[in-house]
Amino acid sequence: MTPLEGLDYAGVAVFAATGALAASRKQLDMIGFGFLAAVTGIGGGTFRDLILGETPVFWVQKPAYLVVCVAMAALVYFTAHLVESRYRLLLWLDAIGLAAFAVMGAAKGLALTGSPITAIVTGMMTATFGGILRDLLAGEPSVLMRPEIYVSAALTGAGVFVAASLFGAPLVVASAIGVVSAFAVRGGAIRFGWAFSPYRPRPGRPPEDVM
Amino acid sequence: MTPLEGLDYAGVAVFAATGALAASRKQLDMIGFGFLAAVTGIGGGTFRDLILGETPVFWVQKPAYLVVCVAMAALVYFTAHLVESRYRLLLWLDAIGLAAFAVMGAAKGLALTGSPITAIVTGMMTATFGGILRDLLAGEPSVLMRPEIYVSAALTGAGVFVAASLFGAPLVVASAIGVVSAFAVRGGAIRFGWAFSPYRPRPGRPPEDVM
Amino acid sequence: MTPLEGLDYAGVAVFAATGALAASRKQLDMIGFGFLAAVTGIGGGTFRDLILGETPVFWVQKPAYLVVCVAMAALVYFTAHLVESRYRLLLWLDAIGLAAFAVMGAAKGLALTGSPITAIVTGMMTATFGGILRDLLAGEPSVLMRPEIYVSAALTGAGVFVAASLFGAPLVVASAIGVVSAFAVRGGAIRFGWAFSPYRPRPGRPPEDVM
Repeated sequence: MTPLEGLDYAGVAVFAATGALAASRKQLDMIGFGFLAAVTGIGGGTFRDLILGETPVFWVQKPAYLVVCVAMAALVYFTAHLVESRYRLLLWLDAIGLAAFAVMGAAKGLALTGSPITAIVTGMMTATFGGILRDLLAGEPSVLMRPEIYVSAALTGAGVFVAASLFGAPLVVASAIGVVSAFAVRGGAIRFGWAFSPYRPRPGRPPEDVM
Repeated sequence: MTPLEGLDYAGVAVFAATGALAASRKQLDMIGFGFLAAVTGIGGGTFRDLILGETPVFWVQKPAYLVVCVAMAALVYFTAHLVESRYRLLLWLDAIGLAAFAVMGAAKGLALTGSPITAIVTGMMTATFGGILRDLLAGEPSVLMRPEIYVSAALTGAGVFVAASLFGAPLVVASAIGVVSAFAVRGGAIRFGWAFSPYRPRPGRPPEDVM
Repeated sequence: MTPLEGLDYAGVAVFAATGALAASRKQLDMIGFGFLAAVTGIGGGTFRDLILGETPVFWVQKPAYLVVCVAMAALVYFTAHLVESRYRLLLWLDAIGLAAFAVMGAAKGLALTGSPITAIVTGMMTATFGGILRDLLAGEPSVLMRPEIYVSAALTGAGVFVAASLFGAPLVVASAIGVVSAFAVRGGAIRFGWAFSPYRPRPGRPPEDVM
């Protein structure tokens, strides 16, 4: 297993765990755990592969990824009650997955297209898409809409990886500093509430008042 | 038309009808009926084909599928008021579509990859994706979040089909017992409220209380 | 740049602006503006390319589209407070984007498949998918569920373009009358509330009352 593959499996595993935690918050049954775990775990990478035209997508070629998702779902099913706050755990695991997938997505995008801009965007999208799907399907408020920094952490990780690669850093070094940067930014956001100042002027009125 | 094609058209038609029923519940106009019917009818198979790299997707190659969706939308538009409970009808038609697509998705996945695990997952995803899309777009509560068995019925149908195929059953036999199994499980769930015991410990708190 | 490319850039730019306006209504930060702008701007075309098997998708091959999205996000970020009603502006820009993408999607579908039905459907889906994504992610009520005409405008534009092409009109003429038709229909709907009579019999009851 190459370091990048290891990163990919790690990202799938922690995102799968966040999907299962969302299932436990909604008190779904065991199959619901497995389904949300799989959708969240493989959602980002599936999207990345579709965009890049790398089909059949990664988990069709290596079903081991699905086994990882099911195993994480089972693990969470039997241990989630031990956790004081499942939502905080979900956010932290999501941060690890975000960091891993930002770099994986950027690496795959850079390898296939050679374009730094494209690589940064595939990194961002891979990192955020699984969590977006999870929140949509589970009816959780979207991580995208949270006040603290989220997408920017993925942007940081993908950007650092691409910059390091362009400066000639070996793949494993560029990956490592990319993952650490993304996790540091997102971790600081969760722990200390780091946020850009939001857009101020005024919130939107309901469409009924406007039309 | 092969038996599998017949199954595919049947699945598209009943899912299209569930989309049109959702449109009638939301009192959309005639075009809204057609749109939701098409998205629901071809959504699952579109996703299956994208994942497997079978592009252009099936309905681009055979627009007859779209004609089926539009015809079902028109049929529902003119008859839905005769039905006592459109939501119950929607659930039963959804059950038929789920059974048909679980087998179709598994058959296509097995034929293209040879992997039983992948085939089961493409079966599950094909069977559930159209309904998920329909509920997201129409603002209905997601079938995924309902207490009775749903995804498991797709899992059963795909699993039975794959097992029967591995044991050498002819395609038409494996398909038939797959469809019947899935429909029996989902039908029992609708009729008798079959459910796995849900995850108990405690429901999730709202994110605001946790952070 | 060909006229069709110009149309595509225009569609991406105005849809990106609607995404950024939705971000401003939700008071996201600057990165949230860029993310929603990009998802909305390139969502419809991404979907079109995936369906048609045109991968890697258009913006992977030409990252200039992403630059356009980011530029529109910045423009909206610094000017949205000047607008009296951002939601009305969003609807009008959405109408321009809808018209541009209905024709673009139909043109690409017709060129690749030769099927008029498929071309009309890829036109409709390209035109509506970005807005659907924007509303799902931003938690806005979906444009699809609005009472006035929406999908029908895309259908009109795609249909007029395809009909004109079949009658031998040059590409630029067919495109122009397609765009104008779609915009006229949607603009009339916004300005005068044009609507088909909705489906009447009765609204859906909540699932809990039915089961």
